[in-house]
Amino acid sequence: MKITIVTLFKDMFNGFLEESIIKRAIDKGIVKFNLVDFREYSLDKHHHVDDTPYGGGAGMVLKCDVIDRCLEDIKTNKSKIILMTPQGTKYNQAKAYELAKEEDIILVCGHYEGFDERIRSFVDEEISVGDFVLTGGEIPAMLISDSITRLLGGAITEESHMGDSYSNGLLEYPQYTRPATYKGMDVPSVLQNGNHKEIAKWRIKESIRKTYLRRPDLLKNYEFSKEDKKLYQEVIEEEKNNND
Amino acid sequence: MKITIVTLFKDMFNGFLEESIIKRAIDKGIVKFNLVDFREYSLDKHHHVDDTPYGGGAGMVLKCDVIDRCLEDIKTNKSKIILMTPQGTKYNQAKAYELAKEEDIILVCGHYEGFDERIRSFVDEEISVGDFVLTGGEIPAMLISDSITRLLGGAITEESHMGDSYSNGLLEYPQYTRPATYKGMDVPSVLQNGNHKEIAKWRIKESIRKTYLRRPDLLKNYEFSKEDKKLYQEVIEEEKNNND
Repeated sequence: MKITIVTLFKDMFNGFLEESIIKRAIDKGIVKFNLVDFREYSLDKHHHVDDTPYGGGAGMVLKCDVIDRCLEDIKTNKSKIILMTPQGTKYNQAKAYELAKEEDIILVCGHYEGFDERIRSFVDEEISVGDFVLTGGEIPAMLISDSITRLLGGAITEESHMGDSYSNGLLEYPQYTRPATYKGMDVPSVLQNGNHKEIAKWRIKESIRKTYLRRPDLLKNYEFSKEDKKLYQEVIEEEKNNND
Repeated sequence: MKITIVTLFKDMFNGFLEESIIKRAIDKGIVKFNLVDFREYSLDKHHHVDDTPYGGGAGMVLKCDVIDRCLEDIKTNKSKIILMTPQGTKYNQAKAYELAKEEDIILVCGHYEGFDERIRSFVDEEISVGDFVLTGGEIPAMLISDSITRLLGGAITEESHMGDSYSNGLLEYPQYTRPATYKGMDVPSVLQNGNHKEIAKWRIKESIRKTYLRRPDLLKNYEFSKEDKKLYQEVIEEEKNNND
């Protein structure tokens, strides 16, 4: 997969591209990153990319012609062009899986003060990573790149996806490692007795419990098996008694 | 404000700290960043920070003792310790404003495979930036740092916050800059006629329209003034007619 990031701040990606799983995926040839500074597509001699807003007001507005020339130059007929904006569709794990199937993604990072509305007509999709305001689209572009890259074949092992929060629709069960006791806190004994069937059951139940306590909204769309349903009822019972 | 980031991947923050608004805020003394590699708090000679999970399964689990020693060493009685985890409370702009009032924040970045459940007992709060899985907490830590820093006095101008998406509970109105016509797309004439009262009204109405079309959920909590309510009714009417 090729991910092109269109930005005024290429250097912000230095650390991101040189560390950890992303670096490994690049070295293995699983993903290729291309950073494009759209300032190079400004035609005026001072290379301006923004101008004052029509109708007045504070802040500068990114010019639509500069972005348009940039995208026209770099896009291919396989490109999926995505604008990073707080007004876009909310990003989630389902969207990460969807984008991981693309061959060529272009992520357009606006910067902090706003962009000409007509830029929306040059892109295929608008994505927001959440209900907060950032100085630009660079961190959202890293976030999306990271979440996609880790799903690409070989970036991390298939098996380690399976316990991921959200991947199966529930939050992950509690994990423990040594020491068995730390400052009075013990690892649950079921995890230490080596009974794999009991461990598997405990994990499903605790995954359901976490989701019930922290993110009950996720349970609405969860398809319970008959056995899971029984565990869910037990959790509800137990939590009720805890609160009494 | 002091922001300490506890991570195994300090270099990932290189680009982030050296660009744009964050760099300016650091130079002005508005915010101070401190990067701490918690591997330095591992006591074994190979500096391991993780170990295999109790009960078996793929992946490694971050050890609770290493994180505990690290936090005990760096925290003060003013520290607010926040764990980056997909299981935490959802981050939003209201939380950004809340955190911007703190003096000393510690952001703990787990890495991709999970951490010992007991680590949750060493922190004040758990935050998730959204329903997706990342390779670690580093990008969420940048995201939170960025959203807070831009709210701190002097990082960007007060006035440019006011049009922010979410800051007043609505999405931002459409912005335009030159050229007035681009590839057949015109800047709305109201923005070019210089009537400031009409422009202000248009902006509120279009802000309501955007929110109505893209994020109707945000309107539920919005407190409409009597005049805004009228504009809202007009928007609903107009959009109904558009769809007929």
